[in-house]
Amino acid sequence: MIKVGIIGATGYTGADLVRLIKRHPQAELAILTSQSYVGEKYSDIYPHLNKLVDLECSEQDISLIVEKSDVIFTALPHGLSMDIVAEANKAGKKVIDLGADFRLDDSSLYEEWYNVTHSQVELIKKAAYGLPELNKEAIEKAEIIGNPGCFPTSILLAFAPLLKNKLIDPQSIIIDSKTGVSGGGRGLKLPFHYAECNENVKAYNLGVHRHTPEIEQELSKLAGDNVEAFFTPHLIPMTRGILSTTYSKLIKDIDEEEVHRLYSEFYADKQFVRVLPLGRFPETKWVAGSNFCDIGIKIDQRTNRAIIVSAIDNLLKGSSSQAIQNMNLIFGLPEEMGIDAPGMYL
Amino acid sequence: MIKVGIIGATGYTGADLVRLIKRHPQAELAILTSQSYVGEKYSDIYPHLNKLVDLECSEQDISLIVEKSDVIFTALPHGLSMDIVAEANKAGKKVIDLGADFRLDDSSLYEEWYNVTHSQVELIKKAAYGLPELNKEAIEKAEIIGNPGCFPTSILLAFAPLLKNKLIDPQSIIIDSKTGVSGGGRGLKLPFHYAECNENVKAYNLGVHRHTPEIEQELSKLAGDNVEAFFTPHLIPMTRGILSTTYSKLIKDIDEEEVHRLYSEFYADKQFVRVLPLGRFPETKWVAGSNFCDIGIKIDQRTNRAIIVSAIDNLLKGSSSQAIQNMNLIFGLPEEMGIDAPGMYL
Amino acid sequence: MIKVGIIGATGYTGADLVRLIKRHPQAELAILTSQSYVGEKYSDIYPHLNKLVDLECSEQDISLIVEKSDVIFTALPHGLSMDIVAEANKAGKKVIDLGADFRLDDSSLYEEWYNVTHSQVELIKKAAYGLPELNKEAIEKAEIIGNPGCFPTSILLAFAPLLKNKLIDPQSIIIDSKTGVSGGGRGLKLPFHYAECNENVKAYNLGVHRHTPEIEQELSKLAGDNVEAFFTPHLIPMTRGILSTTYSKLIKDIDEEEVHRLYSEFYADKQFVRVLPLGRFPETKWVAGSNFCDIGIKIDQRTNRAIIVSAIDNLLKGSSSQAIQNMNLIFGLPEEMGIDAPGMYL
Amino acid sequence: MIKVGIIGATGYTGADLVRLIKRHPQAELAILTSQSYVGEKYSDIYPHLNKLVDLECSEQDISLIVEKSDVIFTALPHGLSMDIVAEANKAGKKVIDLGADFRLDDSSLYEEWYNVTHSQVELIKKAAYGLPELNKEAIEKAEIIGNPGCFPTSILLAFAPLLKNKLIDPQSIIIDSKTGVSGGGRGLKLPFHYAECNENVKAYNLGVHRHTPEIEQELSKLAGDNVEAFFTPHLIPMTRGILSTTYSKLIKDIDEEEVHRLYSEFYADKQFVRVLPLGRFPETKWVAGSNFCDIGIKIDQRTNRAIIVSAIDNLLKGSSSQAIQNMNLIFGLPEEMGIDAPGMYL
Repeated sequence: MIKVGIIGATGYTGADLVRLIKRHPQAELAILTSQSYVGEKYSDIYPHLNKLVDLECSEQDISLIVEKSDVIFTALPHGLSMDIVAEANKAGKKVIDLGADFRLDDSSLYEEWYNVTHSQVELIKKAAYGLPELNKEAIEKAEIIGNPGCFPTSILLAFAPLLKNKLIDPQSIIIDSKTGVSGGGRGLKLPFHYAECNENVKAYNLGVHRHTPEIEQELSKLAGDNVEAFFTPHLIPMTRGILSTTYSKLIKDIDEEEVHRLYSEFYADKQFVRVLPLGRFPETKWVAGSNFCDIGIKIDQRTNRAIIVSAIDNLLKGSSSQAIQNMNLIFGLPEEMGIDAPGMYL
Repeated sequence: MIKVGIIGATGYTGADLVRLIKRHPQAELAILTSQSYVGEKYSDIYPHLNKLVDLECSEQDISLIVEKSDVIFTALPHGLSMDIVAEANKAGKKVIDLGADFRLDDSSLYEEWYNVTHSQVELIKKAAYGLPELNKEAIEKAEIIGNPGCFPTSILLAFAPLLKNKLIDPQSIIIDSKTGVSGGGRGLKLPFHYAECNENVKAYNLGVHRHTPEIEQELSKLAGDNVEAFFTPHLIPMTRGILSTTYSKLIKDIDEEEVHRLYSEFYADKQFVRVLPLGRFPETKWVAGSNFCDIGIKIDQRTNRAIIVSAIDNLLKGSSSQAIQNMNLIFGLPEEMGIDAPGMYL
Repeated sequence: MIKVGIIGATGYTGADLVRLIKRHPQAELAILTSQSYVGEKYSDIYPHLNKLVDLECSEQDISLIVEKSDVIFTALPHGLSMDIVAEANKAGKKVIDLGADFRLDDSSLYEEWYNVTHSQVELIKKAAYGLPELNKEAIEKAEIIGNPGCFPTSILLAFAPLLKNKLIDPQSIIIDSKTGVSGGGRGLKLPFHYAECNENVKAYNLGVHRHTPEIEQELSKLAGDNVEAFFTPHLIPMTRGILSTTYSKLIKDIDEEEVHRLYSEFYADKQFVRVLPLGRFPETKWVAGSNFCDIGIKIDQRTNRAIIVSAIDNLLKGSSSQAIQNMNLIFGLPEEMGIDAPGMYL
Repeated sequence: MIKVGIIGATGYTGADLVRLIKRHPQAELAILTSQSYVGEKYSDIYPHLNKLVDLECSEQDISLIVEKSDVIFTALPHGLSMDIVAEANKAGKKVIDLGADFRLDDSSLYEEWYNVTHSQVELIKKAAYGLPELNKEAIEKAEIIGNPGCFPTSILLAFAPLLKNKLIDPQSIIIDSKTGVSGGGRGLKLPFHYAECNENVKAYNLGVHRHTPEIEQELSKLAGDNVEAFFTPHLIPMTRGILSTTYSKLIKDIDEEEVHRLYSEFYADKQFVRVLPLGRFPETKWVAGSNFCDIGIKIDQRTNRAIIVSAIDNLLKGSSSQAIQNMNLIFGLPEEMGIDAPGMYL
């Protein structure tokens, strides 16, 4: 059994990690840390796990965590994982960072967008970008995983076949994403106060959201060219889910059926990506609670545009279950182990 | 592997049955019937099961269903299961009826409340009331299960220890339940139209809800006495979950700690009932997506009342996963097989 | 024009006061104070009032407020209004306190339930309980109004005709209320965080909610006898509205039609109470956005109980618009002035 | 007093019309028709209007309606208004059609997109497109108003200053709109069933939504050039509101401040359009319940794009209150009469 330590276990992403690891056939919870709830029973904080998880929250004692764990998940705000990752890496333990500290290849870009000095620039090279459908080989060999952001996950899977096949103008990309409120985490802020976000929709951080450089970095790798994308996230009144509606200009004369065939081929052996039949477009309800990414395709001959719509669960494929998918790859387990349950639809 | 036939598989209860049976270690889907979707792929109707369930919806050919199945789940509106159950029973197949046709011992009561003639009065005697925590032995031997209603499940588990220990006046019972909208099913009706039930709460069927005789029948068995209860369901703007707040008059001088001890003992070996520590009361979020029933206890010395609050997932413990719990018991499998996952909290 | 000062104008109750006073034909906004937003434009905090309200938030300078205002609304947490009310009263200005400081006649009860010393015990005698349908004459002459709590408003209007006509046992009262989340105010707390209260229902403060003594005080006045009530509030996932489902034991042999007639008579000249026809029960959607209280009546002969259901908008009839109704009475204006708009249903 | 007849008064748009006309200082309800509720009290169907609206629903007797009304609002599905409008027009009565029959100048385009033959092609010339901020003069003189669609209203107001000032490439337009569920009307359909659209977001009718030709027709007029736009509506889990996020390519070198100045000037005398300060973007909560359209501006120098975000209440500025704004203009009343209330924010 793989012993799992989770740092920052009481956020929403942490809660899903705990739930999933608890039932993973080849992993077990070794230690859970929290800043706010040290000494409290985890199941008092998340009572759905009552009778199932008996651990208490520990304080963040890195050497103890390293000692107890075979793999460490860090589910912390950006800037707080770097030194922990360094210490764990030094001790030879694998780390999967669900925050932003190991996603960007270029530390200066990180520092520009996150306003934090990166203290472990050398380690970035040891990190793999943890999107298994696009980067499996690197993940299998990596010591550190930079687990992708929720928006980037939905966006990269939408664009990969278009860019790999050089079908679109890499300067023409527009991304309009809609996220549920859980993406804002468990920290209290007015925009996530029930009465403020219920019955409301808004755009935020237009063109300046911190996932932008991550999106462009990975889109550029796919394109083999510099990609500039305009990204607008929206907050909508639901708990889980991201829907990304993406727009780009076709540069090849290609019809919808052919694009659909390319997507189907590209994802043929990727069990967690479901390319929908032409004419169908994904809904977040279809993927919520699961590790799936559903993708719908529209080619508009009139305006010569590709419109690709993707849906994921922001806390699962967009974070926790994708992290476990990475863990499975690192440890040579079947990729889907412990994360193959469908959602509940309702 | 137990071969499972589901009649009425495209309602919400059916959808949860399909999802759970699909992943049950000892059962497999043999045939799914539908009235509205004959010939369609099940996963086109419920796309969260895309890539997981390959069956098409069959028409309701009873002899074929009986032939293909070891156990048959009927998830139909009241009045429509009786004859199917009869035919299956004649062929020696077990039947678990998720509707109301085999819940009431007295067919005249059934006919009074449901305005339907019961065509299989003899079969009622072969049916066990499928609430495993209270009726396990009968279930294990039964040929037919009358799977409990969602409200009764939440209410009976709340009252059982009080009544078994004769702590309350059986004429003093008031039950105020709050249900999510999925309880209304997938059929289109104005009260379940989004804009009508969003941002709204209402009481309905005050004192005349069809679950009333079922509640009173089973409460009376627990009390060993005639129970009259006043039951008010409320519709609240959420999808899943029932919270029942129950009120009754104590007839013994007993303190909160002692009542808590009695509840804890009563449910000590019932893994799906979680008696909460004193001072804590359940929330539907804690049980949604699971087979758990969480119970909170308040004894008010001032007004001499017991207030017991219980929470379940109306579609799971209130219907589908409880039906599978019954199947497990009938087939001698571990009670929790295939239904032991916790909910997701969010 | 009546000059209106609002202390604590940036909470949810304050926001509705500002909106309503802005359009009141005989009143105008003179000064708005805030703790958190001093110096900011009010319409930057509540952008729905952009182009309509030009005031900035002032700091809480009591003498300035008193000077500028003919009437002062205090919309503050309990304990913070007493001294302000005293100073305004000394200066001869009317005060309508939307908090809890002037609702209870007995300061020791206040101190017991609110854990605060009441510094203005003498002033309590000058205060009228501001429920116009039950206490109009006292309100018209009062210098200070203790504006009722949201739950008590819904509950007192439900019970008044029953108790005035001595139809029920005053020891038999059970009240099960459901409130929208806005009742928790704009202050950030985990239970009001979107992802925590969306798709969830819970009971809270069972038997110990601070509105209990206020409810019992006013019910006792109506009964002319000591009333003990058990009150359970529930938090449900919607923004506005309270539905109170109340239960009590009849002590007279009376039928539903007669009770309905008594309610209709009792509220015949109260334009904001709508007694529904027998067989209909109120929904919060029918009153949200308005000053109405809708009431539905059920007499259950079988269990000899009266079940009265009432619905209000917690922020309006349960707070702000009721406060304006009180202002209208104090200043001799038509009771409905500025608060007679219906809600929007959707 | 203007006598108002409403045909199709029991849909959601009709309900808002009834509510607003009831309180309009210069108009009164003369007759309300319904297909499903003939003979029923209007306030039994919409109980928020109980005690306020006493009319019963009439059947659709056109000559009676024409006789009783000075102005007729038709709130019917497309295809059903044409002949009614013709009859009313012949009798010299003004008609405001809230459906789609008189929005498109070109009847063949109408027939192509709506699959209905237009039986009153001649009358189209007498109709003005009822977007008062862009077409006031024509409206004042019109006999018939084609009241704009909800999406087009939000989109045209967003683009008008950009196109009038020839700042953008008319072939570069992408529109990503998010609508609340009430836009689907009161008719029962699975996508608007609570459990289906709660906790869900989806794109629908990508590039083929029926508002597309209306959007392009009016955008082209603004541009003085042929505009091709790609329009994707999304259904999100809330009742009221539309947010449109629009993208286009700048063809002039212009900075954000200058664009903001142009918008401010363009809408300087339009009281219902609120151009937000730079850096702020609208939320539907700010406009829900009102006739306002709020607009936020982003100029992205990096990708040379203008991103304009607009918010309206789909049932009000997107339908009913805009219809009344048109009525006011036709009858020479102040444009804002009866529709100048702000929303409630919560």
